[in-house]
Amino acid sequence: MKIGMIGLGRMGKNMADRLRTGGHQVVGYDIAPDSGRDVDSLQALVQALQAPRVIWVMVPAGKPIESTLDQLGDLMERGDLVVDGGNTRFTQDQEHAQALAAKGIGLVDVGTSNGIWGKEKGYALMVGGSDQDVARIQPILDTLKPEGDYGLVHAGGTGAGHYAKMVHNGIEYGMMQALAEGYAVLEASDLIKEPGEVVESWRKGSVIQSWLLDLLAQALKEDPHLSGIAGKADETGETKWMIADALELGVPTPAITSALYARQSSKIEDPMTMKVVSALRSAFGGHPIVRE
Amino acid sequence: MKIGMIGLGRMGKNMADRLRTGGHQVVGYDIAPDSGRDVDSLQALVQALQAPRVIWVMVPAGKPIESTLDQLGDLMERGDLVVDGGNTRFTQDQEHAQALAAKGIGLVDVGTSNGIWGKEKGYALMVGGSDQDVARIQPILDTLKPEGDYGLVHAGGTGAGHYAKMVHNGIEYGMMQALAEGYAVLEASDLIKEPGEVVESWRKGSVIQSWLLDLLAQALKEDPHLSGIAGKADETGETKWMIADALELGVPTPAITSALYARQSSKIEDPMTMKVVSALRSAFGGHPIVRE
Amino acid sequence: MKIGMIGLGRMGKNMADRLRTGGHQVVGYDIAPDSGRDVDSLQALVQALQAPRVIWVMVPAGKPIESTLDQLGDLMERGDLVVDGGNTRFTQDQEHAQALAAKGIGLVDVGTSNGIWGKEKGYALMVGGSDQDVARIQPILDTLKPEGDYGLVHAGGTGAGHYAKMVHNGIEYGMMQALAEGYAVLEASDLIKEPGEVVESWRKGSVIQSWLLDLLAQALKEDPHLSGIAGKADETGETKWMIADALELGVPTPAITSALYARQSSKIEDPMTMKVVSALRSAFGGHPIVRE
Amino acid sequence: MKIGMIGLGRMGKNMADRLRTGGHQVVGYDIAPDSGRDVDSLQALVQALQAPRVIWVMVPAGKPIESTLDQLGDLMERGDLVVDGGNTRFTQDQEHAQALAAKGIGLVDVGTSNGIWGKEKGYALMVGGSDQDVARIQPILDTLKPEGDYGLVHAGGTGAGHYAKMVHNGIEYGMMQALAEGYAVLEASDLIKEPGEVVESWRKGSVIQSWLLDLLAQALKEDPHLSGIAGKADETGETKWMIADALELGVPTPAITSALYARQSSKIEDPMTMKVVSALRSAFGGHPIVRE
Repeated sequence: MKIGMIGLGRMGKNMADRLRTGGHQVVGYDIAPDSGRDVDSLQALVQALQAPRVIWVMVPAGKPIESTLDQLGDLMERGDLVVDGGNTRFTQDQEHAQALAAKGIGLVDVGTSNGIWGKEKGYALMVGGSDQDVARIQPILDTLKPEGDYGLVHAGGTGAGHYAKMVHNGIEYGMMQALAEGYAVLEASDLIKEPGEVVESWRKGSVIQSWLLDLLAQALKEDPHLSGIAGKADETGETKWMIADALELGVPTPAITSALYARQSSKIEDPMTMKVVSALRSAFGGHPIVRE
Repeated sequence: MKIGMIGLGRMGKNMADRLRTGGHQVVGYDIAPDSGRDVDSLQALVQALQAPRVIWVMVPAGKPIESTLDQLGDLMERGDLVVDGGNTRFTQDQEHAQALAAKGIGLVDVGTSNGIWGKEKGYALMVGGSDQDVARIQPILDTLKPEGDYGLVHAGGTGAGHYAKMVHNGIEYGMMQALAEGYAVLEASDLIKEPGEVVESWRKGSVIQSWLLDLLAQALKEDPHLSGIAGKADETGETKWMIADALELGVPTPAITSALYARQSSKIEDPMTMKVVSALRSAFGGHPIVRE
Repeated sequence: MKIGMIGLGRMGKNMADRLRTGGHQVVGYDIAPDSGRDVDSLQALVQALQAPRVIWVMVPAGKPIESTLDQLGDLMERGDLVVDGGNTRFTQDQEHAQALAAKGIGLVDVGTSNGIWGKEKGYALMVGGSDQDVARIQPILDTLKPEGDYGLVHAGGTGAGHYAKMVHNGIEYGMMQALAEGYAVLEASDLIKEPGEVVESWRKGSVIQSWLLDLLAQALKEDPHLSGIAGKADETGETKWMIADALELGVPTPAITSALYARQSSKIEDPMTMKVVSALRSAFGGHPIVRE
Repeated sequence: MKIGMIGLGRMGKNMADRLRTGGHQVVGYDIAPDSGRDVDSLQALVQALQAPRVIWVMVPAGKPIESTLDQLGDLMERGDLVVDGGNTRFTQDQEHAQALAAKGIGLVDVGTSNGIWGKEKGYALMVGGSDQDVARIQPILDTLKPEGDYGLVHAGGTGAGHYAKMVHNGIEYGMMQALAEGYAVLEASDLIKEPGEVVESWRKGSVIQSWLLDLLAQALKEDPHLSGIAGKADETGETKWMIADALELGVPTPAITSALYARQSSKIEDPMTMKVVSALRSAFGGHPIVRE
């Protein structure tokens, strides 16, 4: 089928390529002139498609998606459909869907996984929206997903796709942190000759066999002891939102929360918490404090 | 080659079967008469093997392994070799090796993974000991390990095998807890129609692809929402030991620690910590407390 | 001065008493006829005061405070002032202030601490709002606060009072959890003869001297080992909100989060997380699971 | 009474002073010639006292205390008594007591709190040992403790004193971390004008009234925002040991563990865990990693 694609960054570009390879017609737009875009404005994009249109949006969460959806609401027609394939917070999906529905435009939210590997191997897709809206993009979903039985779920109504992806990312943070903690212990122990070899051995016959383990083993082959990588890690929002929702649901998520806190801590230069602890130790114990 | 196998429980029996299928000669012994044992005493086991002997021990950590190694120290001869394939704490391995070395008997410690799946698919093996001792059991290790490149590592000297397995289990706890927390959030949210379908979809194309995820998806097919399973989980020691060693090494392991605490908490009927919190809330706030 | 007081429950009643003892004139209203109220409707309350009026509201967060402020917005006049002394989430304060400001009515948010002890010893008061609005209620604040230098702070603009109280409660949760964990360890150890005596001894000369420690020592005198108290503890919202805001601020709060999770966990009968862990252990290890 | 005091550092010197002020006769020894010691060797110390002797030892845990007790075992006589007032791990106390008991020498372990404030205000003392041995040093304990009802407990047999102190320190870590997290949130929020004033206000009428809060308020007066203090905090062992014992007892201590991990993390320059997380993010997501 023919669709529009807004946002031709790392993810959007790869998805457009996979769709074209799969026989679909994609009209691409991006704000960057050198993005390889097919049209140079949102208006031109909408005009290049026939109603009822389907436009897939791959732009960052927050202001970029807000602004894009606002403009599409003005440009598109009753009966058109927007797919938000980015990382929008699920609570926003509800607001977006209402605003678009007031103009007769549908919204499907899709969480996507597999990063830079998706172009070749397919993307795990988590989809939220009405049955009719989701049915309209089925051919697109079938091409984007990996071959075989898995990799696609219609998780529920509006927001459910991004919700499922948000939870996926929470689990991902927890798994990565577990691997990281275990590896750090191997590195710190005098008993283990070559930590990278231990990780490599776990790739088969162990309970922790996983894609993340495979990636870690490969990273350790390229850079044993990871000496070329800084001990800082960013976080991108979804896990934070998952924890906030779990707090309200009353579902404790201590391991995933630990994973998030470890990343946040790694970005803080001179933590205020430890200043307080250090000041107190000095106050009652006369412990020397390191004045800067 | 010909070896003795002590302990014919779930793990030992399966290993003996895999070794025999692989062309080795195994003389099995277990304290239980109905275990299918080949000989009915440790003495008979030692006599059934020719020096220099190799005996693989698969008995529980703690007193059983202590007692077995003590007896083998008395029964075996200079030049013989014992393999401890159980879950002994790595700090004990050092003591065992010293006691056996005083009698000229070698010790190799092997951590094994893959549980009930190892018989068919092979066991991930993590090995500790001297190069010569490990070389002596290479044919056994080659048969027990999975086919292919992975699943076997000589991690270091005495204790390194059990150390690597201990860390493996720590990671395993962390990964399971991350999956569990994510799944619990899916279950609690009104947005998600069928949590089991979401998990199923993640089996391909997602970053969290893993054997544990596959097992969870299968468990959810058999028992959607896991209504037949009690919300309690045991812990078996290795992760606790890993955390204790990480504490000394100064390597924080918050996610794995959270996983252990969640299991320990699940086994405590009426936690003293919450009695204290509840008593305090009542004392300063007049909050009603539930008298038992 | 003369003020209205809405909500004559445990907290509101005590505050009204302390104010009257301090020489103020308080007109009390509550929805409950047997509350000892002075007037039987909000309208009557407003009529009983002369403009410019000050009304202090002590009703639960959520719908009760929303509804009360809505009604006061309609009943009160330009130049009047409302004080929200309850546990409203600080994000709501901004909305309330805007709605009231549109009608020329001021809002001051006050977080209060000291629970049932405040009537006699005074309440720690954390105040948010404009300098002029806060100045108007200074005589009231001076009477409600404890004697001496401490116990009152104008923390900032609208919402800052409830924000400071929210953080106070987070700290309170963390301190109580620390005491609870330490006490639970004392109880579990064979070495300690009488845990309650150890706690009692800490009341002077120790670094952890605190009011909470005093309360724990007293509770243990009345009920050694707290055998009459159930191991469950409620949470009331503020700490959850503090963690949610800290997540957005990028300030890790692991100890306080642990305290909240411990309470939430204590209220979950059959935790889904542990069902998942137990199902997985059974799937790969053949570990028996407790079917219900 | 007359006692020997070994170790005239910050703690030992202050204790000796308090004892002398209280009417006791103290013979002091330290390895440092400029310590103000009364005698210049352990032998001279033992000779300066009449049997049955009491010697109080205030030297660091680990090798210093091991070596001192070894030498005292050789120098002292049957019927003498040693008091270990340092921070020895409770598991070591048992070994020390056995070794000394073989020579007829008693051991009492005393955990002390109050740091540099003890000289003037008295030390909270937690005591382990037999009833007879503890009775022998009662006059000393009565002088060292604070005035009034609290500050002294005979917690149990050998090791119980250091055990109680270990738990005290765990609670102390948890309380300090809770204060630190709350303060860091106040600092990070735009709503709060002056975080130090909020802390100051909590000193009376709040649930978190405590000595640690008082010390924090004072520290913030001297250095608002603690800009002169580095965001790093040491840990001294006891809390680590408490967590390790709690792990074995099956008592989860998540808040106290978080406090320890926060300190350990603050001392790690370039954490391996975050290198692993960063390497993985790059491997699956193409997220840029900061090469050093």
